[in-house]
Amino acid sequence: MNFDLVVVGSGPGGYVAAIRASQLGMKVGVIEKAELGGVCLNWGCIPTKSLLKSASVFEYLTHAADYGIEVSGSVKPDFAAMVKRSRDVADGMSKGIQFLFKKNKIDIVSGFGKLLRKGVVEVTRADGSKAEVTAKHIVLATGARSRELPNLPQDGKRIIGYRQAMTLDKQPQTMVVVGSGAIGSEFAYFYNAIGTKVTLVEYLDNIVPLEDDEVSKQLARSFKKVGIDVHTSTEVTAVDASGDKLKVTLKSKSGEQQIEADVVLSAVGITPNLEGIGLEAVGVAVDKGRVKVDEFYRTSVDGVYAIGDIVAGQALAHVASAEGIICVEKIAGLKPEPLNYGNIPGCTYTTPEVASVGMTEKVAKEKGYDIKVGKFPFTASGKASAAGQKDGFVKLIFDAKYGELLGAHLIGANVTEMIAELVTARKLETTGHELIKAVHPHPTMSEAIMEAAAAAYGEVIHI
Amino acid sequence: MNFDLVVVGSGPGGYVAAIRASQLGMKVGVIEKAELGGVCLNWGCIPTKSLLKSASVFEYLTHAADYGIEVSGSVKPDFAAMVKRSRDVADGMSKGIQFLFKKNKIDIVSGFGKLLRKGVVEVTRADGSKAEVTAKHIVLATGARSRELPNLPQDGKRIIGYRQAMTLDKQPQTMVVVGSGAIGSEFAYFYNAIGTKVTLVEYLDNIVPLEDDEVSKQLARSFKKVGIDVHTSTEVTAVDASGDKLKVTLKSKSGEQQIEADVVLSAVGITPNLEGIGLEAVGVAVDKGRVKVDEFYRTSVDGVYAIGDIVAGQALAHVASAEGIICVEKIAGLKPEPLNYGNIPGCTYTTPEVASVGMTEKVAKEKGYDIKVGKFPFTASGKASAAGQKDGFVKLIFDAKYGELLGAHLIGANVTEMIAELVTARKLETTGHELIKAVHPHPTMSEAIMEAAAAAYGEVIHI
Repeated sequence: MNFDLVVVGSGPGGYVAAIRASQLGMKVGVIEKAELGGVCLNWGCIPTKSLLKSASVFEYLTHAADYGIEVSGSVKPDFAAMVKRSRDVADGMSKGIQFLFKKNKIDIVSGFGKLLRKGVVEVTRADGSKAEVTAKHIVLATGARSRELPNLPQDGKRIIGYRQAMTLDKQPQTMVVVGSGAIGSEFAYFYNAIGTKVTLVEYLDNIVPLEDDEVSKQLARSFKKVGIDVHTSTEVTAVDASGDKLKVTLKSKSGEQQIEADVVLSAVGITPNLEGIGLEAVGVAVDKGRVKVDEFYRTSVDGVYAIGDIVAGQALAHVASAEGIICVEKIAGLKPEPLNYGNIPGCTYTTPEVASVGMTEKVAKEKGYDIKVGKFPFTASGKASAAGQKDGFVKLIFDAKYGELLGAHLIGANVTEMIAELVTARKLETTGHELIKAVHPHPTMSEAIMEAAAAAYGEVIHI
Repeated sequence: MNFDLVVVGSGPGGYVAAIRASQLGMKVGVIEKAELGGVCLNWGCIPTKSLLKSASVFEYLTHAADYGIEVSGSVKPDFAAMVKRSRDVADGMSKGIQFLFKKNKIDIVSGFGKLLRKGVVEVTRADGSKAEVTAKHIVLATGARSRELPNLPQDGKRIIGYRQAMTLDKQPQTMVVVGSGAIGSEFAYFYNAIGTKVTLVEYLDNIVPLEDDEVSKQLARSFKKVGIDVHTSTEVTAVDASGDKLKVTLKSKSGEQQIEADVVLSAVGITPNLEGIGLEAVGVAVDKGRVKVDEFYRTSVDGVYAIGDIVAGQALAHVASAEGIICVEKIAGLKPEPLNYGNIPGCTYTTPEVASVGMTEKVAKEKGYDIKVGKFPFTASGKASAAGQKDGFVKLIFDAKYGELLGAHLIGANVTEMIAELVTARKLETTGHELIKAVHPHPTMSEAIMEAAAAAYGEVIHI
């Protein structure tokens, strides 16, 4: 098989690159060993959002009386049904990619891809047979997997990663989640919401440790309020799996303690899938565990490109997609702008949701900026009151000198939708006053953005 | 009592103007005859959002199984509890204004305000006694009320306006809603959702007739799907209130028909409150039923200003607030930019929600623009699938020549939050390509904005 461009991996980096390349007139093939859509569609972003939606509906049901609704009888989560729904959603999306590939005349080559030499990828099929695929341009987009810690070896049954966490046979009664990034925090919220007793353990000082300190502290407060047992500055040093219950040893400044759990979820980051894909054979340079690329995702080997979780930059679906588009637009001779990694939003779909873009207050200060900070709490928002969702705030950080928006940190209902405004505003080089003077509709949560900007400039109305 | 500035009316125009004026160093008084916060807080935006939230939670309950939740027993709306919740939310917000006035040292003068002469307002208190308030600057912000049609005289019991619609003693079994703007459509959705049999009647060709045609048609489809009886190009010619049930006569091209209803809600727009506030006495010019003002809300009489629903422009809370701020900033000697009435978002909080800003496709064509239109349906959105909210789309209209975003028309879950991005983008003079290249977080509904822009330029990935 010969293509103009072949992509190894069909996650949000690979499939998007393939579609864009096809739009630009290339004959495109995609090599995929498993489901189309990669981890994101099948084992990440999409099925978790389905589970989280089930949890949030369940929470509404258990608080129905607050909204003026009578429920006689009981309300129970049907764990298997929730999981089934999430699998159906993921399957539907994966089929969607199949449809898009057909529409864009993209060939799917099923199997495991490995660079053989410049312009040639060897594909090993499920039955062990091999084929060679040739292409002028080869884009590596092999993604990543759950990182394993030496003292937390995953058995896939009781000590698990995110994949198993979304397809457990039955709902665990107790669970320890190790790591409080987006994945860990989302599962902690989900399982707690449907009735599992959850302990969330974070090695660093704060949960969601990449977020602004105030956001981390607010989420910790919200988590504790709903009954999640949050341990920060704490390490899991051992898990004893010899008995019926796992015995998990937590170590913090105050000493060691042991807690029991049915399941331990290890959510301590990801490991890029670099093994066995032929990097060494062809001489593709790797640096600090990631494929080395230039700003257009060209590796050290002519005609070989790499995007997504296997290169530096945030390991996020939307980053991979943007990289894929830029990569193939450059190949096609367009003049794409390099990606601004300083304007990438990050979202955590807990309740309350967390979303941010740009510098935290701490980072802005460390970089020596003279800053103006504006904060607006949802307690002062009419829409938040009407919706019964008053947890959280919008915090905006401006450069005092030029008014540039350096960072935006949001926690609350719907903020994963609200952050897009701030990404676009930064893309368009907004100043604080332009945000204040953009008339936001009333009543919305988004007014809090305008008000937070106004707060930074002493013009806030509602606090 | 003497003030630097006095505001007549404490709605979202008046109270915001008062707070901003106080921030700018003025001694401020506010004359209010009823609850602080005006119609918006007490009888409009805020309590309706509370009712709509109750309806949306109720809908989740009746579809609990879809999300993997077992409900044994029955689920019933408690209408009185829903109304009580909405009143509590409104009262809380009104108290919030009281707090803000205190914090900003704004005096409240209770009573009905009437311009006596330049610099003097007469206030008639509830007990009939009168007082005079003097101020160098008088801002009229008296708002509006439900418009009455001659053939639909409101009795406040069975033929009602929006005020009564949110405090009925009991849930009507059947209701005819006349007028399908934001108010009519929201009540139609609310009552239908909780089990009232609703007929929605619109005189024009489309419901939500100010929206883009495709949005109107989508909302009509969604309304019909949930059981609302939608009649467009139809007039209510008479209501016979002589019997137990109202007999409502509908007239359309296909002839006349009579339907029965417990309640008829008249939602055919608003009438500015211009009566008895002394406009004639002082010689404040009125044009087409609105107070004539310049771009800084100065009336024909020096020292008298008017903002909000009593002047031209969209009768929306956020418009009134923006006008109030511009008005007092100008008075204080700042240099505010005049409001761009072409960049005002409008929202309808039905399910699906509707939000828009700028020109519809029809208007853009009428104005002679050569346009590019991009549309992205939520059926193709991963987040929408995961959330089970696939109704609707994002439609963006660009000027083909310069790439300027002329209009944005959204229908679907959460779009009332998403529209802010497009308002800000237009404020910052975005082009289509800047929207395409702003990296939207995955998975969110907001990705549909990026994709709709990409669709306009032949670069869409997911359709």
